[in-house]
Amino acid sequence: MQKKIFLDESEMPRQWYNLAADIKMQPPLGPGGKPISADMLAPVFPMNLIEQEVSTDRWIDIPEEIQGLLKIWRPSPLIRAFELEKALGTPAKIFYKNESVSPAGSHKPNTAIPQAWYNKQFGIKRITTETGAGQWGSALAFACSLIGGIECKIFMVRVSYEQKPFRQMLMNTWGGKCVSSPSNETAAGRAVLAAFPDTPGSLGIAISEAIEAAVTDPTGETRYALGSVLNHVMLHQTIIGLETKKQLAKVGIKKPDIVIGCCGGGSNFAGLAFPFLYDKINGADIELIGAEPYSCPTLTKGSFIYDHGDIARMTPLLPMYSLGHNFIPAPIHAGGLRYHGMSPLVSAAVRENLVTPIAIHQSECFAAGMLFARTEGIVPAPETNHAIAATIREANKATLEGKEKTIVFNFSGHGLMDLVGYDKYLRGELSDYELSDAEILGNLEQMKDYPKPN
Amino acid sequence: MQKKIFLDESEMPRQWYNLAADIKMQPPLGPGGKPISADMLAPVFPMNLIEQEVSTDRWIDIPEEIQGLLKIWRPSPLIRAFELEKALGTPAKIFYKNESVSPAGSHKPNTAIPQAWYNKQFGIKRITTETGAGQWGSALAFACSLIGGIECKIFMVRVSYEQKPFRQMLMNTWGGKCVSSPSNETAAGRAVLAAFPDTPGSLGIAISEAIEAAVTDPTGETRYALGSVLNHVMLHQTIIGLETKKQLAKVGIKKPDIVIGCCGGGSNFAGLAFPFLYDKINGADIELIGAEPYSCPTLTKGSFIYDHGDIARMTPLLPMYSLGHNFIPAPIHAGGLRYHGMSPLVSAAVRENLVTPIAIHQSECFAAGMLFARTEGIVPAPETNHAIAATIREANKATLEGKEKTIVFNFSGHGLMDLVGYDKYLRGELSDYELSDAEILGNLEQMKDYPKPN
Repeated sequence: MQKKIFLDESEMPRQWYNLAADIKMQPPLGPGGKPISADMLAPVFPMNLIEQEVSTDRWIDIPEEIQGLLKIWRPSPLIRAFELEKALGTPAKIFYKNESVSPAGSHKPNTAIPQAWYNKQFGIKRITTETGAGQWGSALAFACSLIGGIECKIFMVRVSYEQKPFRQMLMNTWGGKCVSSPSNETAAGRAVLAAFPDTPGSLGIAISEAIEAAVTDPTGETRYALGSVLNHVMLHQTIIGLETKKQLAKVGIKKPDIVIGCCGGGSNFAGLAFPFLYDKINGADIELIGAEPYSCPTLTKGSFIYDHGDIARMTPLLPMYSLGHNFIPAPIHAGGLRYHGMSPLVSAAVRENLVTPIAIHQSECFAAGMLFARTEGIVPAPETNHAIAATIREANKATLEGKEKTIVFNFSGHGLMDLVGYDKYLRGELSDYELSDAEILGNLEQMKDYPKPN
Repeated sequence: MQKKIFLDESEMPRQWYNLAADIKMQPPLGPGGKPISADMLAPVFPMNLIEQEVSTDRWIDIPEEIQGLLKIWRPSPLIRAFELEKALGTPAKIFYKNESVSPAGSHKPNTAIPQAWYNKQFGIKRITTETGAGQWGSALAFACSLIGGIECKIFMVRVSYEQKPFRQMLMNTWGGKCVSSPSNETAAGRAVLAAFPDTPGSLGIAISEAIEAAVTDPTGETRYALGSVLNHVMLHQTIIGLETKKQLAKVGIKKPDIVIGCCGGGSNFAGLAFPFLYDKINGADIELIGAEPYSCPTLTKGSFIYDHGDIARMTPLLPMYSLGHNFIPAPIHAGGLRYHGMSPLVSAAVRENLVTPIAIHQSECFAAGMLFARTEGIVPAPETNHAIAATIREANKATLEGKEKTIVFNFSGHGLMDLVGYDKYLRGELSDYELSDAEILGNLEQMKDYPKPN
């Protein structure tokens, strides 16, 4: 029985799929509640990426040079989880798309490479970004290093900067410059440091610093990059699902029954799911499940509203599910899922009932990740454990129903640099967090005077 | 141009190659200098592995169940280092066999899986082992976890146990039991703790504890496992080179000109090189280069003698290059290459001038690893950097000679859990270490009355 399904490099997709061609989207709003124009984004992003951000073309060509760089690790394998199936005693066929094989260990380089490449094409010399747990910052440093001639500065949330020295070292090894945020390098950072010298930092502060550093560079040669949420990021990630469809076809599977990914900002879920969502829109019977943490239940308990992408409100208003831009999620180990908002494209798909969101506690997720590590062998990232827990729930359901369902999930990253959560799980020291409805409503109160999406 | 050369799972080799069929070997010696018998090894290893250890059959079948488990990550890709070639401006074609794709991140699971499997077949319930930097301990915990029904206890050198908590956590996640050595669990450990309560530990002490824990188990259901040096370990690793030959053939290369691996105990070098050594013995013109650290120059400055594999002299006398079993190498970052001896099979090949050993300083190795990370994208393990540095030397030689040589090296593991060396390199804090000839002679003095190999 074949365990791993590979594609030849010649079979790698040459176009990305853009869901914006097939789903009703509402525009981001700028100051005064007016739809934002491409020009207004120009100080922040290069124009070629802005064109992708607003495009409604269904298929967008992947430039050949980008294809060449993606081939360092792509096409990634699709793997049949025989040993996990056996441990669960399920008739379901479980496949996982292994995005942990990238040199940075996650799916993030799928968009880091194109973003760095388009910036360089546009004449940009320096990119700024923020990172929380470090996956995105590592991926962007990796991409800039391969492409060359483009500097990468990463504002890393202070508490992670101090707790995860290995992540810093990894960014530095790839030539990135990683600084602790809040820093003295920006007005936003200095203001926070003056008021709260002992702050642990936050993603909101780091985003503010990274955007400020980009837009205030007098040479005009610096831009900002974001690792999730935005349309062009979802676009670049669709190579995951496009490959998966070809791989399933190789083993005679016309369509999966269930497609699963974890949801933070939405990019790894979208990457696997959107190409199948295209089939679903065109009549295929496929269930798409987005798994988020119970402690940060954006899709399951948030509201579909216009909200900012960052605490400092430097981004436009985006039409999305949100828990409020001031919301600070509990300190779960899946740092990549601790985000108050959600990709507008994923949000639109949830709102149209094309995607089913579920929330899972981290203790269930780590139990699932532990079972996976001890059967399939790879230690998953804490974020990925949410997709595995959802997969196990669906496999158990298939067992009860006696149905031989095909389940595919996105193995978004490995956990070799995030083992503390496993250690706490084994010691029985993991906590679960739940928000009350009153807390959620309280958080959303601040947006009551914002424009409302239709 | 094709970057990655894959094999289908159906093309994975079904036999290991045993160099002992093709090279003159001298037997290990037991007490009194007599050749050791299989029976004398029986308390330490299961008989099926002892049979492999002493076998002179050229080809040994890989049991189907082991093949199935290896397929979790094998066949591993052979990758053309186009970007490294470009950075060097060399006419040489550089290929690397990427053994970092295993879930444990190195080549070690190639032998951990068979060792755990043969132990289980023989009715063994518990395996003990030692680990220094943690690569081998992780691999054995991983293997025992997948095979099931077999416990794994790892004695980890205290200084590494304390400095590398992530390695411990990884072993624990796979269900291994990792204890700091010296421990209170063995007489050997207790004796050291009583005499030197503040000792940082050593591989020699950890080996003594692991062997003692195995042979003193009154149930007789515990055996010991070693991750390198021994013949059966080299045997299991030859799947690396056997795959590589098939992969080169796929892109029309009949034979490489140069094959390179780093050398600590010898297993990753042997794994890639021995199948090519077979061709060389049969007339092919292939240069085989083993790269070792300048600070632990076993092959380049040691003597070919009978010596023990451990400081506590619990192992038989092995015919090998050695710097003396009491030798404590300087604290370089390539922990896996800090070993006083060398696999008897690799030693025999060096002695017959079939393999060329070279020694390289760690500063040159980290410079090579940094260049690799920033061109090919994957951050190499500090051990692997020795093979990369040797490859760069040979590529530069090919440039001077204007020759389009084909170079293949073993990318034995990634460095995602060993980034401290890169950090020190970037800060300019790396030290190189060199032994004087007098020091080396002084170390070898203690073996002057030992039996001598022919």
